[in-house]
Amino acid sequence: MIKAGIIGSTGYAGAELVRILLNHPDAKIVWYGSRSFTGQPYAEIYGSFFELVDEACLDDNMEELADAADVIFTATPQGYCASKVSEDLLSRAKVIDLSADFRIKDAARYEEWYAIHHPTPEFLGEAVYGLPELNRDLIKGARLIANPGCFPTCSVLSVFPAMKAGFIEPDSVIIDAKSGTTGAGRGAKVQNLYCEVNETVKPYGVTTHRHTPEIEDQLAKAAGREIAVQFTPHLIPMNRGILVTAYARLAKDVTEQEIRAAYTEMYGDETFVRVLPEGKVPETRYVRGSNYADVNVRVDRRTGRLIMMGAIDNIVKGAAGQAVQNMNVMFGLDEAEGLRLVPECV
Amino acid sequence: MIKAGIIGSTGYAGAELVRILLNHPDAKIVWYGSRSFTGQPYAEIYGSFFELVDEACLDDNMEELADAADVIFTATPQGYCASKVSEDLLSRAKVIDLSADFRIKDAARYEEWYAIHHPTPEFLGEAVYGLPELNRDLIKGARLIANPGCFPTCSVLSVFPAMKAGFIEPDSVIIDAKSGTTGAGRGAKVQNLYCEVNETVKPYGVTTHRHTPEIEDQLAKAAGREIAVQFTPHLIPMNRGILVTAYARLAKDVTEQEIRAAYTEMYGDETFVRVLPEGKVPETRYVRGSNYADVNVRVDRRTGRLIMMGAIDNIVKGAAGQAVQNMNVMFGLDEAEGLRLVPECV
Amino acid sequence: MIKAGIIGSTGYAGAELVRILLNHPDAKIVWYGSRSFTGQPYAEIYGSFFELVDEACLDDNMEELADAADVIFTATPQGYCASKVSEDLLSRAKVIDLSADFRIKDAARYEEWYAIHHPTPEFLGEAVYGLPELNRDLIKGARLIANPGCFPTCSVLSVFPAMKAGFIEPDSVIIDAKSGTTGAGRGAKVQNLYCEVNETVKPYGVTTHRHTPEIEDQLAKAAGREIAVQFTPHLIPMNRGILVTAYARLAKDVTEQEIRAAYTEMYGDETFVRVLPEGKVPETRYVRGSNYADVNVRVDRRTGRLIMMGAIDNIVKGAAGQAVQNMNVMFGLDEAEGLRLVPECV
Amino acid sequence: MIKAGIIGSTGYAGAELVRILLNHPDAKIVWYGSRSFTGQPYAEIYGSFFELVDEACLDDNMEELADAADVIFTATPQGYCASKVSEDLLSRAKVIDLSADFRIKDAARYEEWYAIHHPTPEFLGEAVYGLPELNRDLIKGARLIANPGCFPTCSVLSVFPAMKAGFIEPDSVIIDAKSGTTGAGRGAKVQNLYCEVNETVKPYGVTTHRHTPEIEDQLAKAAGREIAVQFTPHLIPMNRGILVTAYARLAKDVTEQEIRAAYTEMYGDETFVRVLPEGKVPETRYVRGSNYADVNVRVDRRTGRLIMMGAIDNIVKGAAGQAVQNMNVMFGLDEAEGLRLVPECV
Repeated sequence: MIKAGIIGSTGYAGAELVRILLNHPDAKIVWYGSRSFTGQPYAEIYGSFFELVDEACLDDNMEELADAADVIFTATPQGYCASKVSEDLLSRAKVIDLSADFRIKDAARYEEWYAIHHPTPEFLGEAVYGLPELNRDLIKGARLIANPGCFPTCSVLSVFPAMKAGFIEPDSVIIDAKSGTTGAGRGAKVQNLYCEVNETVKPYGVTTHRHTPEIEDQLAKAAGREIAVQFTPHLIPMNRGILVTAYARLAKDVTEQEIRAAYTEMYGDETFVRVLPEGKVPETRYVRGSNYADVNVRVDRRTGRLIMMGAIDNIVKGAAGQAVQNMNVMFGLDEAEGLRLVPECV
Repeated sequence: MIKAGIIGSTGYAGAELVRILLNHPDAKIVWYGSRSFTGQPYAEIYGSFFELVDEACLDDNMEELADAADVIFTATPQGYCASKVSEDLLSRAKVIDLSADFRIKDAARYEEWYAIHHPTPEFLGEAVYGLPELNRDLIKGARLIANPGCFPTCSVLSVFPAMKAGFIEPDSVIIDAKSGTTGAGRGAKVQNLYCEVNETVKPYGVTTHRHTPEIEDQLAKAAGREIAVQFTPHLIPMNRGILVTAYARLAKDVTEQEIRAAYTEMYGDETFVRVLPEGKVPETRYVRGSNYADVNVRVDRRTGRLIMMGAIDNIVKGAAGQAVQNMNVMFGLDEAEGLRLVPECV
Repeated sequence: MIKAGIIGSTGYAGAELVRILLNHPDAKIVWYGSRSFTGQPYAEIYGSFFELVDEACLDDNMEELADAADVIFTATPQGYCASKVSEDLLSRAKVIDLSADFRIKDAARYEEWYAIHHPTPEFLGEAVYGLPELNRDLIKGARLIANPGCFPTCSVLSVFPAMKAGFIEPDSVIIDAKSGTTGAGRGAKVQNLYCEVNETVKPYGVTTHRHTPEIEDQLAKAAGREIAVQFTPHLIPMNRGILVTAYARLAKDVTEQEIRAAYTEMYGDETFVRVLPEGKVPETRYVRGSNYADVNVRVDRRTGRLIMMGAIDNIVKGAAGQAVQNMNVMFGLDEAEGLRLVPECV
Repeated sequence: MIKAGIIGSTGYAGAELVRILLNHPDAKIVWYGSRSFTGQPYAEIYGSFFELVDEACLDDNMEELADAADVIFTATPQGYCASKVSEDLLSRAKVIDLSADFRIKDAARYEEWYAIHHPTPEFLGEAVYGLPELNRDLIKGARLIANPGCFPTCSVLSVFPAMKAGFIEPDSVIIDAKSGTTGAGRGAKVQNLYCEVNETVKPYGVTTHRHTPEIEDQLAKAAGREIAVQFTPHLIPMNRGILVTAYARLAKDVTEQEIRAAYTEMYGDETFVRVLPEGKVPETRYVRGSNYADVNVRVDRRTGRLIMMGAIDNIVKGAAGQAVQNMNVMFGLDEAEGLRLVPECV
């Protein structure tokens, strides 16, 4: 039984980790960390867990937690995990960081986009980018996982095979993403009040969103060189889900069937990436509450472009579910253990 | 041209006052008061008003405002207006208070339900409860209006005629109300975040909601004696609208037609109360954005009860629209001036 | 391994049965019945099931299905199941009927409220009302289960203990219910279009809703005599969830603690009914996607009433989840098998 | 007083025409046409109009209507208006067609994208594309107006100035649009049920949406040559609103200030197009219920692209409001008459 501790367990991603781990046959939560609610019964924060979780919230003492747990999930603001990680800590517990601290290998690039100092760049090299569909083997032996961002997960899974196969012009990629509001977090901000989000849609972080360099770094691996990606997210009046619509110029004369074959080849054996049938578009509701990423492509002969589409649940495959998937790989379990969540239809 | 000042113009009710007054042919806003945003252009708070309002927000100096304005709307937290009202102020400007400060005539009762000291109970007698359908003549000569609460407006309009006619047992009234989330205000609270309100419904203030004594006081006028009302509001995932479903035991052998006749008699000449055709139920969308209150009744022979239903837009007839209706009456204008807002269908 | 067949598998309750049974360790779906989509791959109807369900939809041949399955779920319109049930059928397969056909023991009463002829009243006596918290022992040996309606499930669980203990006046019960829109079914009707339901709330079936006699029949068992209940449902802009707010006059001098003790005594050992802590109100989101019913009570000394509140997911505990709970009891499995679904927090 | 007739008055765009015209000081509705509801009181279809519209629905007899009305609005499916227009009809009444029948000047191109025969191509030359910000002078003398589509209105207003100024590469334009669900119409289709649209987002009409050629034709005027545009709409869980996010490669070395100057030059005197302040993004809620189009641009130096953003209310500026704007221009009224609708804030 894997003993798991969660720092930041009362945020939306943290709560989703709890929801998933409660039904995981080989893991047990030993630490419900929450700086804001220390001492308060966890089930008082979310009534969902009444009679399911009896424990009270603990503080964020990672030193003590490293003794109590086999694996620590940090579902915390940027900068927290990087400030705590040490050789000693990693020798005592594995760390899966849901923040961006170890996703970007170049500390200067991280500091430029996040406007925050990186205190422990010496671990950037060791940290493994936890997208199992790309890095499964590296994850197996890792002590420190940089769990991918929600937009990068959906964007990279949608675009990677076409980029890798050389079907598209690397610098022509434009990613227009639509996200549910859990992505904005649980902080008490006027802009995230019900009445400010309901019945409206808006872009945000236009040209400056922090997930841009992360997407670029991963797609660069497919392109074999550095690339620049245009990325624009939009806030949608729904709780969960990310839809990515990505556009790129076709780089060669290729059919939709050939492109779909590249996707099927890459994802055919993957449990959690579903290449939809020809002509079907991803919808976020069909992955809701699950760890699936649904992807598909459409060639537009008229314009010479490829349209790549993907859908995930932003707090499952885009956060907590992927973190558990990484945990499963790190601890040698069946990768889908505890993650066979069937999406709701409505 | 009536010069109007608004204290609390950046809250939801305040912004709705602005929306309505901008199209009012006989009124002009001279003071956009906002303690939180003093000095900031008003249109920066709500992009709706871009190019429509050029003014910046002013502070809440009611002394100065009383010189600049003919009428002051206070869309402020409980206690504010009561702390500012004085003989001198009322001699210089009329005041329409959208808070609860002057709605309950008994200061002790106010203090009991609101847990707040009333600093100026000497004005309770003068203040007129601003429900024009009940108090039109008193409003005409008033200097100080207690603009009704949103739930009381909808509840009283729905129940009054049946109570007045003696058709129902006074102490049997149970009011179950459903409210959109603008009713919770624009404060940055976790419980009002999009993801906490969307896809859920809950009761609140069960047995203790502060609108209870206000409803009781008004319905007592119909009953001719003090009464106790059961009132329970619920938070609904929508921005605007209140629906009231009220239940009472029939006190006499009366037909639905006779009861409907009492409603038609009371409201037949009213512009803003619509007695729906037999068998139709009120829906909040059919009054959305307008000053209408839609009401109807249904007799249940099987149980011996009368079901009274009403719908309003909580920030129009339940707040800003009613405040403007009161202003129109106070200044001798056509009562519907500036309020001929046709409800949207969708 | 229990072989399960579903008639009406493409409606919302049918699809939820599929979602639940796919993860049930001791059951397997052998028949995806759908009159509308016969021959079409089931996963084409709901993309959620892509790569999870390979089967195509079959017709509604219950004769053939009775040979293929150990248990048949009928998630069908009123009248269907009653027209198919026979001694021969029940001797070959157990039937769990999600329609109202066998819920009301008096055929005349059924025909009066449903305006439909009952073709097989001879099975009304045998059919067991499948609310395990009331009828567990009867369910164990049953061949034919009348799976309760969504409103009755929530209403009866909320009111039963207080009624049974004699704390409330039997004929004073008023139930005001709020339901998500899955309750309206998947038929293509204008009134259920997104734009007609979003941003509005309305009552429906006022004084005439068909779940009224079902609620009365069950609560009559608690009261020890026939009773009349006032029941009014409302349509809420959300997919899932029912909230019940029930009002009754206190029949004796009793404290909230004593009443809560009666609830705890009845539900203390129940897996799926959670009596919330004192002062907490049920919210539908805290049971979303799960088989839980959350209940609580509040005494109002001022009015002499008891307020009883309950929340369920209407298509889980109110339909498919309860059906599986019944199946588990009928087949001697752990009652919670396949139903340990943790509610989402957001 | 202009006498206006509406064919298709019970659809969403038709009802919005009614909402707007009821408050228009110089127009009066003389014909509420509805094939589906002929003979039924109009206010029974939408309770919003109770006590505001007493008329019953009439049929779609355009011959008779042409005698009764000065202007006919056809808010009808594709093909209807084209099948009715004749020299005789246009000599008796002006026609504003809200369908696509006369938007595309090349009948073959219309027939290719709409898969429908065009019966009266002889009027394509006369029909004026009713985007007043582009074609005001032509509209003044027109007898037949092709009222623009919702997506084209928002797309063209967002992109036109940059294209016209030569700032962007003509064939690089990618338009990613997000639309509220009124855009899907009021037909009873499963895919538009509340539960199928709520809590999800999806693309549709990928590479094939019929508004594509309309957008191309209008932007071609700015480019001075034929162009191909990539256009992808998405369905969003909200009633009203379209947001356009458009991407294009910069064609020259130009600053954001210079580009904004081009927008301000084109729209500075326009009542209904608001060029937002630098750094502000359009949000659909800030134009809700109004005839405004909010636009803004953002240069991305890093990628060498221009991002153009626009927001409208799809059934006001994208349909009924623009139709009334056209009527005002055609009849020599103040262009904003009846259209000074202030957007709601929430």
